[in-house]
Amino acid sequence: MAVGPHSLDFEVVPGVRLAAVACGIKSESIADLVLMEFAPGSHTAGVFTQSVFAAAPVIVGKDHMAQSSPRYFLVNSGNANAGVGEEGIADAVHCCSAVSQTCGVRPEEVLPFSTGVIGERLPVENITHHLEDLSGQLSEENWLQAAQGIMTTDTREKIASRTFDVAGERVVMTGIAKGSGMIQPNMATMLAYVATNLTVPADLLHDTLVASTNKSFNRITVDSDTSTNDSCMLTATNQTNASAEDPEVYSRFVQELDALMLELAQSIVRDGEGATKFIEVRVQGAEQESDALAIAYSVANSPLMKTALFASDANWGRIVMAIGKAGIPLDVNKLDVFLGDIQLMAAGQKHPDYQEAAGAAVMAEEEITIRIDLNAGVVDTSVWTSDLSHEYVRINAEYRT
Amino acid sequence: MAVGPHSLDFEVVPGVRLAAVACGIKSESIADLVLMEFAPGSHTAGVFTQSVFAAAPVIVGKDHMAQSSPRYFLVNSGNANAGVGEEGIADAVHCCSAVSQTCGVRPEEVLPFSTGVIGERLPVENITHHLEDLSGQLSEENWLQAAQGIMTTDTREKIASRTFDVAGERVVMTGIAKGSGMIQPNMATMLAYVATNLTVPADLLHDTLVASTNKSFNRITVDSDTSTNDSCMLTATNQTNASAEDPEVYSRFVQELDALMLELAQSIVRDGEGATKFIEVRVQGAEQESDALAIAYSVANSPLMKTALFASDANWGRIVMAIGKAGIPLDVNKLDVFLGDIQLMAAGQKHPDYQEAAGAAVMAEEEITIRIDLNAGVVDTSVWTSDLSHEYVRINAEYRT
Repeated sequence: MAVGPHSLDFEVVPGVRLAAVACGIKSESIADLVLMEFAPGSHTAGVFTQSVFAAAPVIVGKDHMAQSSPRYFLVNSGNANAGVGEEGIADAVHCCSAVSQTCGVRPEEVLPFSTGVIGERLPVENITHHLEDLSGQLSEENWLQAAQGIMTTDTREKIASRTFDVAGERVVMTGIAKGSGMIQPNMATMLAYVATNLTVPADLLHDTLVASTNKSFNRITVDSDTSTNDSCMLTATNQTNASAEDPEVYSRFVQELDALMLELAQSIVRDGEGATKFIEVRVQGAEQESDALAIAYSVANSPLMKTALFASDANWGRIVMAIGKAGIPLDVNKLDVFLGDIQLMAAGQKHPDYQEAAGAAVMAEEEITIRIDLNAGVVDTSVWTSDLSHEYVRINAEYRT
Repeated sequence: MAVGPHSLDFEVVPGVRLAAVACGIKSESIADLVLMEFAPGSHTAGVFTQSVFAAAPVIVGKDHMAQSSPRYFLVNSGNANAGVGEEGIADAVHCCSAVSQTCGVRPEEVLPFSTGVIGERLPVENITHHLEDLSGQLSEENWLQAAQGIMTTDTREKIASRTFDVAGERVVMTGIAKGSGMIQPNMATMLAYVATNLTVPADLLHDTLVASTNKSFNRITVDSDTSTNDSCMLTATNQTNASAEDPEVYSRFVQELDALMLELAQSIVRDGEGATKFIEVRVQGAEQESDALAIAYSVANSPLMKTALFASDANWGRIVMAIGKAGIPLDVNKLDVFLGDIQLMAAGQKHPDYQEAAGAAVMAEEEITIRIDLNAGVVDTSVWTSDLSHEYVRINAEYRT
């Protein structure tokens, strides 16, 4: 049911090795345990869920990051290690210790990540019994296997790369992500890992990740639900002579990183549970970004709007409703609304030339832009969402998150 | 698909006459135009949608109420008269003038109400051509016909009455409501009309309606979407010697009104689009009501929680997720969660005695209470919601709101 093109191409990142195995957490014998290794001297930045019910690996991971630069990420899918209290913390710490012994680093140099069912104890033995095998398979080539190993209800891998040259040196960045339901990240998505060989100071890396996340993973929604495990990590292996401290290099780095992050974030929406449509909700002419986002999310999360999108119904009354309920004061008599290139509303009422057939033609497309111009200011921002289909209900009535 | 018992019993209210006819706005030849008449000397209070896209009848009705005590309500279903700019205002005013001529009152003594498709011009001639017929049919007995005449996607009428005696006098209150989708009222529901013969001063009537609405129509959600036409009206025909100015009478009046309003509000949730379950989300032990409501609505509106309810899946991880995303700071280690009488969580983790089978048995019921105790204060409040079913998607993919 995923929407749009899908590429499995990627570039290896010098200083990053990966491995994935099936350790038996999922019922099928498919990969569910991933190890990522970063060369000594790497820096990592991270942003995490703002759920007050943050999962154990998020709590442990933040604690470890405060003490040390990560050398290993251990990621399991199939079990979220969330909602299990102090035992979950102990389980995550235990897994980090096991990796530290297998790989010869300190436990604080290992970050744990989990995604899957909430409320069940992590099967720690499944994980620890496979660490020797896992570490033995580490390779720079295994990005795609890692992308597969972190999937849950995802129907396809999310992987993307960007490259550029600086003074004859090749800078690479590659990222993977997972997520399909429980998607309205708040500071990060379900799980995303991006790495680059570029040399980037730690503070700059963090600020850059926060800014880029706010333009990508914090602009998507499938179902307005926010995971307990959201984590988005950016690692620089610092293996180039070029440094992001050079303003020209930094500018290029940000440009490519933003594009990569947005591609990964959008790939989550394209693979949203039951998605048959990929929708951009763009709000222009706002006085401030918070107004634009409130209106955009009100439209993007409206169940009535999402079912109309599923049905290819140019039901602009529901757009009006969703704008109206956002709670943002606005002059409705200035409002213009467009569906693709077709103007539905002008100055707050139906455009005199609007024909239902033209709107229906846009709604029949797989990729749709709803553009709302408030004509009140200069802020212009977008969020991306999917539709609400029978398949969404079926998946979530049958799957135990 | 509606959930729970359904009664069509009602009591006539002295001083209130009603009529309903089919005027051809809906494609079928079913009633879609309702007139309600209140005896001279009646007082009316109203609360209306807070959508910035308030429909034309809401704008006109508020204007008329500011000038005069209403004698007539004219209600049409099938067309919301919303999103059509100044022409919608003119159409609503025109209908009020037509009623004023037919019934011999001033136009400001008529309030217009509309519900149905957004963005289409109101077919004014259909309405005005039927006013003679409509006014000729006015009768105290026609409450049920009126309840039918205001329905859109509703599958059953919403009507309820309460009576009590004061010093040998019989006080009656009867109400009707409509609503099934686009339901998260903000100050009122789609449409609700309650009338009593009790003598109630106008100011007191207004304050009482606001307080009662906050405990009933402002505590329900089907799909988190807020209509442009929400209106909730309370009329007192002032035909009793007993007066609500007497504290004892007032206390009894509020008690019965609150019960009636809650019954009508819950009847909307029970008939929520595609509803197979009726769910109370009760948050206890909160420090303040706004915290309790934010958490309750976060659970009640979560698509993942609603699909789990549809599937009778005791998926308490989704309850944890929905509490966590509400953005309310809380000590998760104090949290108790109950499904019916079964305790799922104690002190922030799965209760040691919890058995999946016991949770599944509760989830298989048609009426379910999810109780969340924050153990942080004394506030205790509830909201009511329905589940998210295949039928919800089907209805809203096929119906043009």
